[in-house]
Amino acid sequence: MQPITTKLVTQTIVERPAESYKGNYGRVLLIGGNQNFGGAIIMAATAATYSGAGLVTVATDPQNFASLHARLPEAMVMDYHQTDYLLELLAGMDVIVIGPGLGTDTFAEQLLGTVLNAACAPQRLVIDGSALTLLAAHPRPLPDLPIVVTPHQMEWQRLSGLKISDQTPTANHKAQQALGVIAVVKAHHTTIYTNEKIWFNPGGTPAMATGGMGDTLAGMVGGFAGQFTNFTAAILSAVYLHSAIADDLAATRYVVLPHQISALIPKYMHDFSVADPDEA
Amino acid sequence: MQPITTKLVTQTIVERPAESYKGNYGRVLLIGGNQNFGGAIIMAATAATYSGAGLVTVATDPQNFASLHARLPEAMVMDYHQTDYLLELLAGMDVIVIGPGLGTDTFAEQLLGTVLNAACAPQRLVIDGSALTLLAAHPRPLPDLPIVVTPHQMEWQRLSGLKISDQTPTANHKAQQALGVIAVVKAHHTTIYTNEKIWFNPGGTPAMATGGMGDTLAGMVGGFAGQFTNFTAAILSAVYLHSAIADDLAATRYVVLPHQISALIPKYMHDFSVADPDEA
Amino acid sequence: MQPITTKLVTQTIVERPAESYKGNYGRVLLIGGNQNFGGAIIMAATAATYSGAGLVTVATDPQNFASLHARLPEAMVMDYHQTDYLLELLAGMDVIVIGPGLGTDTFAEQLLGTVLNAACAPQRLVIDGSALTLLAAHPRPLPDLPIVVTPHQMEWQRLSGLKISDQTPTANHKAQQALGVIAVVKAHHTTIYTNEKIWFNPGGTPAMATGGMGDTLAGMVGGFAGQFTNFTAAILSAVYLHSAIADDLAATRYVVLPHQISALIPKYMHDFSVADPDEA
Amino acid sequence: MQPITTKLVTQTIVERPAESYKGNYGRVLLIGGNQNFGGAIIMAATAATYSGAGLVTVATDPQNFASLHARLPEAMVMDYHQTDYLLELLAGMDVIVIGPGLGTDTFAEQLLGTVLNAACAPQRLVIDGSALTLLAAHPRPLPDLPIVVTPHQMEWQRLSGLKISDQTPTANHKAQQALGVIAVVKAHHTTIYTNEKIWFNPGGTPAMATGGMGDTLAGMVGGFAGQFTNFTAAILSAVYLHSAIADDLAATRYVVLPHQISALIPKYMHDFSVADPDEA
Repeated sequence: MQPITTKLVTQTIVERPAESYKGNYGRVLLIGGNQNFGGAIIMAATAATYSGAGLVTVATDPQNFASLHARLPEAMVMDYHQTDYLLELLAGMDVIVIGPGLGTDTFAEQLLGTVLNAACAPQRLVIDGSALTLLAAHPRPLPDLPIVVTPHQMEWQRLSGLKISDQTPTANHKAQQALGVIAVVKAHHTTIYTNEKIWFNPGGTPAMATGGMGDTLAGMVGGFAGQFTNFTAAILSAVYLHSAIADDLAATRYVVLPHQISALIPKYMHDFSVADPDEA
Repeated sequence: MQPITTKLVTQTIVERPAESYKGNYGRVLLIGGNQNFGGAIIMAATAATYSGAGLVTVATDPQNFASLHARLPEAMVMDYHQTDYLLELLAGMDVIVIGPGLGTDTFAEQLLGTVLNAACAPQRLVIDGSALTLLAAHPRPLPDLPIVVTPHQMEWQRLSGLKISDQTPTANHKAQQALGVIAVVKAHHTTIYTNEKIWFNPGGTPAMATGGMGDTLAGMVGGFAGQFTNFTAAILSAVYLHSAIADDLAATRYVVLPHQISALIPKYMHDFSVADPDEA
Repeated sequence: MQPITTKLVTQTIVERPAESYKGNYGRVLLIGGNQNFGGAIIMAATAATYSGAGLVTVATDPQNFASLHARLPEAMVMDYHQTDYLLELLAGMDVIVIGPGLGTDTFAEQLLGTVLNAACAPQRLVIDGSALTLLAAHPRPLPDLPIVVTPHQMEWQRLSGLKISDQTPTANHKAQQALGVIAVVKAHHTTIYTNEKIWFNPGGTPAMATGGMGDTLAGMVGGFAGQFTNFTAAILSAVYLHSAIADDLAATRYVVLPHQISALIPKYMHDFSVADPDEA
Repeated sequence: MQPITTKLVTQTIVERPAESYKGNYGRVLLIGGNQNFGGAIIMAATAATYSGAGLVTVATDPQNFASLHARLPEAMVMDYHQTDYLLELLAGMDVIVIGPGLGTDTFAEQLLGTVLNAACAPQRLVIDGSALTLLAAHPRPLPDLPIVVTPHQMEWQRLSGLKISDQTPTANHKAQQALGVIAVVKAHHTTIYTNEKIWFNPGGTPAMATGGMGDTLAGMVGGFAGQFTNFTAAILSAVYLHSAIADDLAATRYVVLPHQISALIPKYMHDFSVADPDEA
C-alpha cells in the first residue's frame, strides 16, 4: 500500500491558467436527494461547488430546490423525474455524481439504470451512497468510462460480497479488479484501489463519524474530477484533502460537520496549489 | 443536592476511539414541529447534530422540510403523518426525542401514544415540550426503558401536580420517584432528579430566557444519550454544557440565541474531552 | 428638542434579574409579510428576537414560513388568514407589531381593523409600514392603549397631512398630539414625539438608506417594549441603538444591511446594560 | 484601450450626503430566475442589494421566493407571470436588470419583449445572461434609453456575430457601435465598449471561473447604476470592484464563490468612497 502524499496533491492541484473560463473547470451533474434524504445531495453539491467545479447542476426531487438554493445559489437545479431533460443535460456534462440521498426505491433504481445507459466516455462517473446499494441488489454491467465508487465498509460489503472482517487490502483489491472501477473504501484510514495499485489515506479522525461526510467526499471527488486531467490523482487528492481539512478542524472540535469541510476547500486547494511539490 | 462538576462532564465526554463509525455515535430520531412550531424541532435537531449524534432523522410536518434542510443538511427528514414508515425507522433508532414543537392537538396526542407504544429498551427516550403537556393531560403508563423528561417549571407543575411555589427539591424528588423517570426541571439553576440522587446545575443566566432554549437542550440530551453509555451522566453533561456555553456567550451578550449555543457545542465538547479529569 | 442620551439608554436596559424566565421578557406578536413583502416581517421578527423578546410569534402569509424559519428558527409562525386563531393568540400577547410588509389590499385593511379592535391595555402596540398607509387612507379611532407609530417622512405626510417640507418639530408635535400616540418620525436624525416632549436621535447615517431598515427598527421597538417598563424609554432606546449600531458599521461599510444591525443588538444591549449610567 | 483606474472608481463612488433616503439610491428591478436557474437571480439581487441599491424587487418564478428570502430578506418579490403587476412596478423603477437565470423558452422571450417595450428613459437597463441569448436569436430594436449588455465571450459571439477568435477590440467596438448600447465583454480581462471609447479592466483571476460570477456582476452594475449619475462610470466601477474583490479573495482561495464577493461590496465601496482620488 502506498500513502497519498502531500506531493501528489500539490502536483495535482495546479495553478489555474489566467486565460480560462468556467467551461474549463468541469460541468458536474449531481443526481440524488429524494424526499427524505435531500440534505445528502445539498452537501454533495456544496462540496463540488466549493471544490471549484465550473458549473454545477443538481437533479433532485423538487422538494429540495428551495433548501438547496438557500444554501447554494451557485448551483442549477432540475426535477429528476423529467427524464428527457435529464438526458439532454447529461449529454453535455463532464462529470456525473449519482447516489447521495438517492434512496433505493423503484424510481431510484430506474433512474440509476437510465444514467448508466446514457453516460459515455470521456465523461467521468462517481457512484456513491444509495446507488451502490442499488448496484449491489441489482447487479448490472457498468458502462465503459472512468468510474469511481465510494462505498463505506457496509456498502462495500454489499457491493463486493466481502464481509467487513474480510475486507483486507488484498481481498479488496481482488474485488476491485473484478468490478473494473476505482474503489474508494471509506474507513478510519480510507483505502483506494485502482487497477495498478493500492493507496491509503494517512488522514482521518473519528470526529468525521457523522452523517453527510460521505456525501461531501463524493461531491469533492466530482469537483476534482472535472478539473484535473489525471482521474486517479483527482480522486486521491479529494480523499486526502477531505480528511486533511477534517483533521485540522478536529483539533478544536469534538465533531466536524460536513458543511464545515466544504467551506474550507477553496483555502486548502489554494495552499496546495502554491506549495512547492519538492518541498512538500 | 449535588452539583454537576466539570470532572463529571470531563469523564463522560471521552475521546472517540480512532476506529469508529457514525453508527457508533447514535441514531437519533427527533419527533415534533407542527405547522406553527417548526422552529422548535429545527433547533432540537441542530443541537443533536452539533452534539455529535452519528445520524439524525427528523419526523415532522413536511412544511418544515425546506427550512430544516436550509439550516441543517446533515439531518434526514420524514413526514410524521406516515405512521408505518415512522415505526419502521423508529425500530432502528438508539435515541428518540419527542416533543419540541409537537403541539397538543389530537394528532400530536396520537403520535405520542404511537411512539410510547413502539419504543423499547435499550432505546433511550427524551420527552420534552408539548409532549409533557400531553402526558399531563392524558396520563398513560410509560414504557420500560431509560426515559428523561425535561420540563420547565410550568410543564413540571402540569406533570407532577406541584405548583411552582411548591417545587422544592424534596417535593420534586418525590414526584420524580412516582413517575419513575429521570426529571430535568429547568429553572435558573436547573435541578435533575434520578432515582438515587438530586443534582443541580451550577450554571445558567437570564440571557437564556428566550424561546427555543429548551428545544436546544432536548436535542443536546438526545445527542449525548446516543454517544455516552451512562445515561444519567450523558444527561447531566448536556445540561451542564448547555448553560456553560450560554454563560460564556452572555459575558458579551444581553440575550443568547439557541442556535448560537449549538454552534459552539463541538468546541466545548472537545475542550472537555481533552481536559484532565483530575485537574478539572 | 431633547437628545436621546447614552444615559437614558443605559438606565433603560437594566441587567436581567437572575431568577427570570422567557415569560418575563415579553410575548411579541408581529403581523405582516404578504406574498410580495415577506422579507419585511422576517427582518422585523429577527430584530425583535435579537432584542431579547421572550417569545416571538409571526402572523404572516404561509408562503413566508420556510424562509422565516430558515433564518430564524426561534420564532413561531401562524397563517394570518386564520382570524380565530390569531385572536386567540393575540389575547395572550404583551406587544403587537403590525405593518411590516403587510401591504395595503382589502385583506390587510380588514386585518388591521381586527387587530385594532382586539388589542387592549396593558398591551402595547407598534404600528409601522403599510399599516400606517392604511390608517391614513381609512382613518379610524385607535384603541386606548400604549401605541407608537413609526412612519418615515412620506408615511408621516399621509398620516399627519403635513407635507415633508412642513414637517417642522412644532407642526409634528401638534399632529402627534392630535393623534394621541407616540410618533417616531424617521429621518436622517429621527425625531420622537410624545405627549410631553420632543426628542431627537443624535445618530444616523446615509448608509442606512436601504430597504428593510424601518422594519428592523419596528421589530426592535417591539422587542424593547416587551422588556422595559417605561414605554417611552423603551422606544427611545430602540431608536438610539438602531442607529448607534448602524453608525459603527458604517465606519467601514458604504451601506449597512438591516440583518447586520440585528446580529449586533445582543452585544450592544449588553454593553449598555453594564455601563455606569453616571459615566455615560 | 484605456484601463479603468482606481481614480475613476474613487471619483464615482462619492460619499453619501447625510440628508438622503433610500429613494435616492435607486429602485432596482431584477427579472429572471426560472424553475431551473433560480440561483442566478438570487445572486444578482444579492449583489444589487449589497451594492447599496435603495430598494430591490425581484420578479421571478414563485418557486424561488423562499430561497431568495432565506438569503436576502432585504429584497421584495413578485411572480413574473403577473404581467400587469410587473408593468405597474416597472414604471416606478430607476433601473431594470433582465436576464440572470431567465432561460430561453417562449415565456422568457415574451417577458423580454414586454420589458423592452415598457422600459423608457430615464430608466437604465442592464441586459445579461439568457436575455442576451434571446436577443441574439430574436433580434429586435432596443428602446431608446441607457442600456448596457454584459455578455461573456460566447454570448457576445451570438449577439455580435463575431467568433471568439475574431473578438478583437476593434471588431468588438465596431459591433458595439452597430448595437448602440454599452457592451461589457467578460473575459480574463474584461473590455468595455462605449460609443466613445474602449476600456479594459486590469483585474481578474481564474478563481472567478465559476457559475454565478456573471449574475453577480449584472447585479452590481444594476446597483451602481441606481446610485451614480454617470452611467458609464457606474458600469466601469462595478466591473472594476467585482474583480478587485475577487483578486483579493483569490490570494487565499483556489476558487472564489459569487456570494463571497457580494458580502464584501459594502466594505470595498466604503474604502473607495473615502480614498483621495488624487492619491489613488
